[in-house]
Parts: sequence; structure tokens; C-alpha cells
Amino acid sequence: MMEFCTLGTGGTLPIPERALSSLYVRVNGRSLLIDCGEGTQVGIRKLGWGFRCLDGMLLTHYHGDHCTGIAGLLLSLEKAGRDEPFHIWGPRGLKRVVEGLCVIVPPLSFAVHLHEMPAEGGEIELIGLKIRAFPVNHGGIPCFGYRMFLPRGAVFDPEKAKALEVPMADWKRLQQGETVRIGGRRVTPSDVTGAERKGITLVFSTDTRPCETLDKYCADADLLILEGMYGTEEKMPQALKNHHMLYREAAEIARKTQPGGLLLTHFSTSIEDPEEYIPETRTIFERTWAAKDGETVTLRYPEGSEKAWTSLS
Amino acid sequence: MMEFCTLGTGGTLPIPERALSSLYVRVNGRSLLIDCGEGTQVGIRKLGWGFRCLDGMLLTHYHGDHCTGIAGLLLSLEKAGRDEPFHIWGPRGLKRVVEGLCVIVPPLSFAVHLHEMPAEGGEIELIGLKIRAFPVNHGGIPCFGYRMFLPRGAVFDPEKAKALEVPMADWKRLQQGETVRIGGRRVTPSDVTGAERKGITLVFSTDTRPCETLDKYCADADLLILEGMYGTEEKMPQALKNHHMLYREAAEIARKTQPGGLLLTHFSTSIEDPEEYIPETRTIFERTWAAKDGETVTLRYPEGSEKAWTSLS
Repeated sequence: MMEFCTLGTGGTLPIPERALSSLYVRVNGRSLLIDCGEGTQVGIRKLGWGFRCLDGMLLTHYHGDHCTGIAGLLLSLEKAGRDEPFHIWGPRGLKRVVEGLCVIVPPLSFAVHLHEMPAEGGEIELIGLKIRAFPVNHGGIPCFGYRMFLPRGAVFDPEKAKALEVPMADWKRLQQGETVRIGGRRVTPSDVTGAERKGITLVFSTDTRPCETLDKYCADADLLILEGMYGTEEKMPQALKNHHMLYREAAEIARKTQPGGLLLTHFSTSIEDPEEYIPETRTIFERTWAAKDGETVTLRYPEGSEKAWTSLS
Repeated sequence: MMEFCTLGTGGTLPIPERALSSLYVRVNGRSLLIDCGEGTQVGIRKLGWGFRCLDGMLLTHYHGDHCTGIAGLLLSLEKAGRDEPFHIWGPRGLKRVVEGLCVIVPPLSFAVHLHEMPAEGGEIELIGLKIRAFPVNHGGIPCFGYRMFLPRGAVFDPEKAKALEVPMADWKRLQQGETVRIGGRRVTPSDVTGAERKGITLVFSTDTRPCETLDKYCADADLLILEGMYGTEEKMPQALKNHHMLYREAAEIARKTQPGGLLLTHFSTSIEDPEEYIPETRTIFERTWAAKDGETVTLRYPEGSEKAWTSLS
């Protein structure tokens, strides 16, 4: 399964109820962050899922609301006793931004590895996730969305094991991924497993106008986390000017790409209550929710044609 | 009168109840900040005293817990529509630090003037306050405390005005600071006022061991805001190593310098309840309190030998 927490759901500026953009993703006890606005380190402390298990961070772009928390996060990682390297991925400019923000960070107890990605994005492997960074349209600046895929191993098939005359005493080793020798033969785990099972796909992309790459990488996901920067049609001039999306536009992407659910985040400070526009948005895509700061969601492996989405209460 | 708010009372790392160091000071509708840790901009939003009226900021030093909020603050000032210059004072290194942190800040709608002060500190005039930056002892790095003085004009003396035969119709102009002509004579405001009245003195100094300059600039203040980094004697090795103070040491400075009151702030994350050590600290200096995030205090002009300190409830 995959768990996540929307640490901060505010866009542009923080308000008391909405810290700036940050998503905490946890798989099998290890975790990553996407973006790190002001308030991220204290959000992690509130959440209680820990700093030590954070192996890296993916940055969408370098506007202040997505990266003002980086120096504080690194200081918190150090205080948590980190000594393993910490990895940061992001578009062009990563080195300049992190080095600038870290002017106040003394030499750390761990290495920080910066992975600056080209305009077309790229592939990342972290905490067992296969991640695709893809470019979106936030005006002239480089900005990425991230599609995260958690694969699920194929299940052990006792009938295949029996057919290959594997003694039951060896089943456990095969289930744990070992190859065993039966007399003169080698039996590998893939000899005794069924078909690959469906994994979990989570897409996170804020700060973009609707665009082709977004449609492409949102296809067939279990859950989309997209921006609900503005709630009403009157805000379209701002959405166009600032390269953001309306709730309606995010829902139209979900209608096209049919994920299990759509979770909106990155709300403008002009939105007092992010729930207000949800009923109307559901007329476009029914399984839509508005995220809250500190809310946690569990995505369980889907069975059959289901999506790995546990609807929010 | 002078008002202030302890926006953030946390040291080193923020926790949910304690944002990082920042003090908001307001006089006559204009304001300044001292330090700007992560959480400052949202603290100002909660407080409701505004961004537009902030004319400048004084930095004590450049550890992360005192300046991680600078970029976010400048972005908030811009969104609040600021177009007047904003001034920042601090010890050596100011330019390098602010320029580094602002790597993510686009060109602003207002000018930011940086005033890097020499090792011995200096004099500043801002929002009607006469401010003295003085060096303290935070290990090898430059670190300042700030003594802020709000002068109070002398009061109009009707007996003097009558003795100088000033017509009552001219009293108001004199009270407003104008010079008037009575026949061939010039009468200035100082001709018709009594003795200077006592102003208000507030001292803010965290992140230091006890030291001579601190004793000197704390003398005869109305209120001292000093650090209570550690509550118990067992923490003395950390206090010495990290160049911080115990509650007891702050109280001993107050006992020596006899301010109206002592407000402790900048609490280590190891302190769960800052109130816990107050009763014992009061055996050294009785008028001691522990600050809370978002707490506001009003200092009114003192009468006679009083201090301008309204005790906290």
C-alpha cells in the first residue's frame, strides 16, 4: 500500500489553516516529499511519520510557495540524526536555488545530492516507487508533475510449485524471492508465480494550465492530486495570467483520464472554504475531494478492475 | 505607548505550538520586526496587525531559526501592496544571507535596503524608536541584541505660556510643534513645555551567554525579552556549548539590571511547558513571565518612578 499526507494545501501565501505546498508519501516505512513550502518541517512534526525515513524530495518548480521550507527541512533532518545521503530532484535551476537557500545552513551531518533534470523530465527510483517527472505548463518557467507507480509483485501459485515438485519446505524461500535447487534443477520465484498484479499509481501536479503532458501522465491513475487554485469562472483571467487551473479544469482532466479519484489542493488565499466549490465540481467528475492540511490517505492495492482509492469520509 | 507580539517563541526548530523566533513591535501605527524565523508571515496574518505598516526588520544573527522566514515575508509584503522601501539591519554577512535566501524571490514592487552593521553595532531610527544594536556573545559569530527607546515629548505648560503672554489662540500651534510670533518675539515649543518625560525602553536579546554588553544595555529598561533556552541546571553543558542561557541566568541579569519585567522566549524543543520553570525563576526575579506564540503586550508610558510594564495575566 501507499500512504500520503497533504502537509500543506495553500497556494502563493500561507494562512493559519493552510501551510504552503508539500506532500509526504510513505511506502513500506520509507518516505519522500514533493515540494517544501514554508511550514513543511512543522507539518511533518505534527504528522508524526518522522524525518529519519525521508530519503528524498521532488521539487515541481522554484516559486517561493514550493520551496521556502527547504533550509528548515534540512536542519530538521540533521537534528533527527540523519547520516544517509538525502536526494533532491527538480527542474533546471535546482543547484542555484538549493545553494542560495542554504546560505544559512552550516555543514550538515549528511550529504545532499542534487539531481537537476532536463526540460523533458525523466525517470526516478525512490522508496520502491518508479517515478516519472513530466513537464507541465506554468508559463515560461520549468515546472514538473510527478507520476508515481508502486509495482506489486506477482502472487505465489501453489499449483505451479506442486507441478514443479517443489517441496513445501522450500516455498517460503521462493516467496521471499530466493532461487532454490531441487535435485539438479534451479527453480526461480518467477517459475512459481502467477500473472503480475496491478500496482498503485498516484499523480501529483500543481501549478499548471491544462496541457497535453498532463493528460498523458494522468491516464489510468488511481488518484490524481491536482490544483484547485481558483473556484469560479470569474477567476479565469487570473488563472490564465498566473498559469493556474480552476476546479472545473482539474475535474475535466479527471473526466478525460478516469482516475479512481481526484483530490484538489493548492488553494488560492482568495478561497475561504475549499469545500464550497466541490458539489459543482462533482457534476463534472464525481469522485472529487478538497484536501486539508495534515489529512492522510491510504491507497490499497486494487483488486480486479478497481482503483486503489479509499474514498475520503 | 508601544505594543509588541511574540510571534514565535521557539528556538532551533519549530514545533506545532512554537514557531521560530520573531518579535513584532508597533508604535503609533507603524511597525518593525526583530528576526524572521519560519512561520513569521503566517504569524503576522494570525495577529492581524498587518504587513503594510512594517517599515523594517532587525536581525540578531543568521542561524536558520532566526531568518528562514525572510523570503516568505518579502513575498507577503509585496502581496500586501507595499511600494515604500523596506529596511533590514543586521550584523556582518547580511547582504550574503538575504541575497542567498532571495534566490527564489522575483523582482519586488519595492526596494529592500540592507544595512550591514559593524561588530560594535550602532544606532538606528525606525518607527519613532531610537534603537541601539549591541554585540552579545553567541560563540564566534556576530550576534546583536537590540535596545529600543520610545521618547516621550515634554508636556505643554500653560503657566509658561501665560508668563510669555502667548494668546490662547496660539497654544494649539505650539503644542503641535510650531514656532509662533507674538508681536516682535518668537516663541518656540520648548519655551512653553515642562521637563522631558520618561519614555519606554524595551530590550530584546536572545542567543547569547550572559555578558557585559548585555548587562550594560539591559540597565534601567522597562522590559527585557531574553532567552529561556533551557530550564534546568543539568542543561548547563548544552548552554555553554551552544552559547545560550538558562532561565536562571536570564533572571540574574534582570536582578542586576532591575527592569519592570522579564519576559522569556526562544525555548528549546526539549522544554515541553515553558511555564514549568517560572515559579523557581521568580525566586531570583519576581516579575518574570514565559512568552507564548501570538501573545500581545502593551507598554504604556510610566508615571513617576514606575516602569512601563503591564503585568501579564
